[in-house]
Amino acid sequence: MSKALPKRSENYSEWYNEIVKRAELAENSAVRGCMVIKPYGFAIWEKMQRALDDMFKATGHVNAYFPLFVPKSFLEKEEEHAEGFAKECAVVTHYRLKADPNGGLMVDPAAKLEEELIVRPTSEAVIWNTYKNWIQSWRDLPLLINQWCNIVRWEMRTRLFLRTAEFLWQEGHTAHATEQEAIEEAERMLEVYATFAEEWIALPVIRGLKTPSERFAGAVETYCIEAMMQDRRALQAGTSHFLGQNFAKAFDVKFQTAEGGLDYVWSTSWGVSTRLVGGLIMTHGDDKGLVCPPRLAQWQVVIVPIWKSDEDRAKVTEAGGRLLESLRSAGIRTYLDLREGMTPGAKYYEWETRGVPLRLELGPRDLAANTVMLARRTGGPKAPVPLEGLAQALTTEMDRMQKDLLAAATLRREQNTLRGPRSKQEFVDFLGSNGGFVYAGFSGDPAVEAEIKEQTRATIRVLPDPEFRSPEAPTTCIWTGRPAVTEAVWGKAY
Amino acid sequence: MSKALPKRSENYSEWYNEIVKRAELAENSAVRGCMVIKPYGFAIWEKMQRALDDMFKATGHVNAYFPLFVPKSFLEKEEEHAEGFAKECAVVTHYRLKADPNGGLMVDPAAKLEEELIVRPTSEAVIWNTYKNWIQSWRDLPLLINQWCNIVRWEMRTRLFLRTAEFLWQEGHTAHATEQEAIEEAERMLEVYATFAEEWIALPVIRGLKTPSERFAGAVETYCIEAMMQDRRALQAGTSHFLGQNFAKAFDVKFQTAEGGLDYVWSTSWGVSTRLVGGLIMTHGDDKGLVCPPRLAQWQVVIVPIWKSDEDRAKVTEAGGRLLESLRSAGIRTYLDLREGMTPGAKYYEWETRGVPLRLELGPRDLAANTVMLARRTGGPKAPVPLEGLAQALTTEMDRMQKDLLAAATLRREQNTLRGPRSKQEFVDFLGSNGGFVYAGFSGDPAVEAEIKEQTRATIRVLPDPEFRSPEAPTTCIWTGRPAVTEAVWGKAY
Repeated sequence: MSKALPKRSENYSEWYNEIVKRAELAENSAVRGCMVIKPYGFAIWEKMQRALDDMFKATGHVNAYFPLFVPKSFLEKEEEHAEGFAKECAVVTHYRLKADPNGGLMVDPAAKLEEELIVRPTSEAVIWNTYKNWIQSWRDLPLLINQWCNIVRWEMRTRLFLRTAEFLWQEGHTAHATEQEAIEEAERMLEVYATFAEEWIALPVIRGLKTPSERFAGAVETYCIEAMMQDRRALQAGTSHFLGQNFAKAFDVKFQTAEGGLDYVWSTSWGVSTRLVGGLIMTHGDDKGLVCPPRLAQWQVVIVPIWKSDEDRAKVTEAGGRLLESLRSAGIRTYLDLREGMTPGAKYYEWETRGVPLRLELGPRDLAANTVMLARRTGGPKAPVPLEGLAQALTTEMDRMQKDLLAAATLRREQNTLRGPRSKQEFVDFLGSNGGFVYAGFSGDPAVEAEIKEQTRATIRVLPDPEFRSPEAPTTCIWTGRPAVTEAVWGKAY
Repeated sequence: MSKALPKRSENYSEWYNEIVKRAELAENSAVRGCMVIKPYGFAIWEKMQRALDDMFKATGHVNAYFPLFVPKSFLEKEEEHAEGFAKECAVVTHYRLKADPNGGLMVDPAAKLEEELIVRPTSEAVIWNTYKNWIQSWRDLPLLINQWCNIVRWEMRTRLFLRTAEFLWQEGHTAHATEQEAIEEAERMLEVYATFAEEWIALPVIRGLKTPSERFAGAVETYCIEAMMQDRRALQAGTSHFLGQNFAKAFDVKFQTAEGGLDYVWSTSWGVSTRLVGGLIMTHGDDKGLVCPPRLAQWQVVIVPIWKSDEDRAKVTEAGGRLLESLRSAGIRTYLDLREGMTPGAKYYEWETRGVPLRLELGPRDLAANTVMLARRTGGPKAPVPLEGLAQALTTEMDRMQKDLLAAATLRREQNTLRGPRSKQEFVDFLGSNGGFVYAGFSGDPAVEAEIKEQTRATIRVLPDPEFRSPEAPTTCIWTGRPAVTEAVWGKAY
């Protein structure tokens, strides 16, 4: 019916694009760099949203909504922030169209805005201008607010899910009375992201800090979770920023302390986006198509009835219906594929492309034996499973698959990681030939970081948290031989 | 602590604004006409979203996401649609800022877009340009897609929740093989809206059709649900449009029919917005503040512990904690108000302002008697209720309150409705003195409709469905005495 999917090993980039297309996850729209998220892709994002939202609420956060537009003068207030985002801003300059004498519509020059509005590239500016009126005293703190919304950053080179001019995300913005409390919040949310990535996306991540050159514009520290894709390139999967008092100072947000003094508020912001859907695809997909972790799959189980005669057809259709009901009522997201004019094989192929974790094949012989044939998207032999106790068996299968996907991704990452190269040459060679991650000593000098980037195209993805560091701390900088102040993880990034 | 709320009867508009402010539902942002939806207000919208989304999915719809931006040329394609929205469009003309030599940032004139982008005032244009590639054959139909998103319409006179430059909504966009099926879909979704309005917001609505002058720009028919607020003005609470083949023709979306022919697709669109939160406030609020129907309340029950001595305080706090746990585990959204430095009276006042349906007062004497004092937001005497079986008792109370709110709003609407005025004078007098709704005969002449609007400021809100019509159909037009073709409901609208 259609050409085979390109192989990951041959053209990873084309493989990715084809999966996004064939699994009907998203497509480019007519608007430059903006994507249409198709229902099957959006269902994954919805499940991510629900799981994250529950985790945010369990850690004391509430949702709110702030305006789409940021007045230009607000964006200017925090200098680094302004500089960081100025080059990718969509700017609204007019508020009306009128009939064009040549036909159609034209911008009405009489409807020019006094001050240009920026379509939010992130909401610190608009939110801190609001928090100013919400915070007077320590009693108003902490403020723990999240919003789910769309974001626009005019990226020149876009890629579905990974980098688009418009994307969907959540952004948490919190305000605290003390530095310590704000740092704890930034760290707590990074931990929430890491837990979500591993338990839901089956995406193993390294937690740690960014170097100053990779920090969020306006942050004091940027915490991140960093993952490795199957092409051994790094994907920044989520960030959490300790903003110090930078935005409080830019927007003059002071509060009365419990001791009666006056101080600027301490703050954080943190976000993950639809990019995570791209991370899911690139981590688990194989040469047959998408592999979706069961916890995020729109359909966890698909039932394909098989028949030759009309009599068999009536029987398996009816049995499929009963099976559908029983699995659904057990909380398993199940689809019964009764489409006409398609062979069972064509259906298998399609559901494999779309990454459905488990497939049940139901034919007259299975029915007679009170079993169903189970095929796993992650491979292995097909085998009959008794209808009796099926829901429980499938739940166990899915739990195992969820764990196995995480384990496989972790193993792959470790196999493509070099810890403690013995020489600068080995460092360069590994990054040049294999890609992947290299753990090595770093002197902390930004000029060295820049030089490495220039010569190898690899950047410091993360300064890892203690639990991810090598057993023996490197003592010298891999590039200069100078004393190392920290261990760093290098990789080529998306 | 603060001035009393303005009375509804004295200054309805000020009363509304003060409730939105004091209950901390929303506020105006620094961006003209755009609102900040505060956490307490957003929680109501989230509950509305969840309930509606479940209803959409139960009727076979799936969610997706389409771009924020509409190229100007797309908006131009359906003529009426273009004309209807041109005057309130936010227009993006540039995609970059740069450093201003005078300091700060300026729009980079080199980054002018070739074609202006409109921030979506609705998504028919961008969606139909996409559907064009999704629909080839009758097998691709129906397409039943919804999206939750933000919308921008540059309104000149804004009002929190009711009419804002940016608002949140959902928009369903469906494509069908036959006219009949599309009409049924538009009617089905109107029915979903009506059910939601009545069962969740306790908002009684009249279902029916709009006249051509109030139709959605580009629709063949607009179905609506229309409600009456406490100031007797009408609020359009939701609309569902049968679009005929208008957008299919504008975007050239044809499909292969089952019979082998080629035809344009039939379509619908339908939406409700954050305006519904405004409708909730204006329908149920009283002179003490917000009254929130239990099914949509962030907190359904608030527990206020009462103590004088430290010993009592420890006891009631501990008992309050146990009560909180038991109610929460019974699925009741409960808040335990342990704030210091506030009298119980001040807490009662605050939770009344914020519309919490039920309040439990828990003091040492209540504890000793194994009871708790129950106060209902909708009034009536306070009474002790046994702790034993409390969750069940509160659930029953809330069910009753939910029904009573709907009944009270329905009664109020009917009391402010005049059916079949005997003369044009009575029609004019009722609308002029009382406001409210008038059911009367209408000839169907748009000129008459316009004249009535000019002279009375009342418009035809809805041509009611049969079940809402008067037992005796009016035979003459109330304005001209000419034969009536239909019964219409007039009112002054928000």
